[in-house]
Amino acid sequence: MKRSNRLVALTNFFLENPRTHTQFPYFVSQLDTTKASVSEDMDIIDAVFRSEGIGYLQRTTGAGGGVKYIPARVHEKNKLFVEELRRKLEDPARILPGGYLYMSDLLGDPKTVREIGRVFASAFSEMDIDVVVTVATKGIPLAYAVASFLNVPVVIVRRDPKVTEGSSVSINYVSGSSRKIQTMVLPKRSLSEGAKVCIIDDFMKAGGTITGMINLLEEFHATVQAIGVLAEADDEEEERVIDDYTSLIKISNVDMKKKYIDVHVGNLMQ
Amino acid sequence: MKRSNRLVALTNFFLENPRTHTQFPYFVSQLDTTKASVSEDMDIIDAVFRSEGIGYLQRTTGAGGGVKYIPARVHEKNKLFVEELRRKLEDPARILPGGYLYMSDLLGDPKTVREIGRVFASAFSEMDIDVVVTVATKGIPLAYAVASFLNVPVVIVRRDPKVTEGSSVSINYVSGSSRKIQTMVLPKRSLSEGAKVCIIDDFMKAGGTITGMINLLEEFHATVQAIGVLAEADDEEEERVIDDYTSLIKISNVDMKKKYIDVHVGNLMQ
Repeated sequence: MKRSNRLVALTNFFLENPRTHTQFPYFVSQLDTTKASVSEDMDIIDAVFRSEGIGYLQRTTGAGGGVKYIPARVHEKNKLFVEELRRKLEDPARILPGGYLYMSDLLGDPKTVREIGRVFASAFSEMDIDVVVTVATKGIPLAYAVASFLNVPVVIVRRDPKVTEGSSVSINYVSGSSRKIQTMVLPKRSLSEGAKVCIIDDFMKAGGTITGMINLLEEFHATVQAIGVLAEADDEEEERVIDDYTSLIKISNVDMKKKYIDVHVGNLMQ
Repeated sequence: MKRSNRLVALTNFFLENPRTHTQFPYFVSQLDTTKASVSEDMDIIDAVFRSEGIGYLQRTTGAGGGVKYIPARVHEKNKLFVEELRRKLEDPARILPGGYLYMSDLLGDPKTVREIGRVFASAFSEMDIDVVVTVATKGIPLAYAVASFLNVPVVIVRRDPKVTEGSSVSINYVSGSSRKIQTMVLPKRSLSEGAKVCIIDDFMKAGGTITGMINLLEEFHATVQAIGVLAEADDEEEERVIDDYTSLIKISNVDMKKKYIDVHVGNLMQ
């Protein structure tokens, strides 16, 4: 295959297979070329990925040597994206009864969701993560976006056991905002013992939901490596119970009467 | 920018922006090159995309001329993927009480989900679709995968109104399997009047859930252009109420006693 064609095929391959170690002989045989040519292709792709800010190629030499695409976008580009998101969230038309913000339009846009996933994946790209865990419903698209860049599966914690998932482990926890006792369920089959987990959710107030997830994950002897929330907001009645987390957006004040929202960038950008 | 570098940058651009019309002057200025060179780049990318079976570039000439990446994968490749999926689903260890099949491992794998999205998007790529609609919870990742290839937003129908989404429209419907009256809700803001909709769900028996969605969508004067379900299964008690749909997998018999499942490819592959 000619260099130009190889570059298109290889670019597609890397983008579809992030964080996957692939040995050189695979490319040599697939692209019908030499190791030296593949190596030059990698140099070109690596340079463009870096200048486009979409990550880089990590190479290992020697026997079993190969290459891995690390989809870590440069901080500057992530910052621009998060700032744009912040501006969109500032719109007073988003204020809903109860001091909530309407975000379904942003969370419904696959491109925005993918970009949010890219920001989290950039922050967590060097970590040892086996699985992304989220809770139904709103965290689901974000979790898949992060997982697709980290190249790991997604496990969804539910608030009600589903007949179609077999036997399950459940816990009860107290929700921060409603003070009600709630349930969380994870099918036994869905998570292997001792998994290294990244928790992703859309919104965090006091952190009761995330504490619930951590407790449930303890039943599987899982290790929580990272916690990422799209937006955090202060809870007036309760202090935050989670302190080691990554947020993209921080909502510090929603004034229903004056129709004003105070939206900042989250701790990842500070 | 040199041709090799342009090819990498352009490949990334097209893959990230399917079904988006982009005019040539944009590429000429972004890549600091000539229209003739960009045109040659397109020829190369188009040829590789076709030979890799991941779609093609659709060009329009004249004033306002440009190019659009159509992510329609060739039927042969889609067929291979669906056949592999069918084989995985045949495993008797998937049988759950009630004749359900455990599919969470497959639906939890972002790569499998993305490939399922690609198959549906290939089938619907020439249709005029404004939005993908699904119902919480299991259809969500599939809906995002389809939507990301079609380059349209996702709207999620819920079974309970959420305080964080504002005023909503709801309907009641009778569930095929449980014969219970259920509710479906869609926030008013989430869907514009007269939208052209593609419905995506993971599983369909008699089709009660999808009928419910269609009824709810009628309240928004939406037009249902396509219905895609990952797996269809016969309902022993009730006849199917939906007949114009696309399925990837057809489960025709689950024998709990003999631990045997009869899984076929769905109507898209027949």
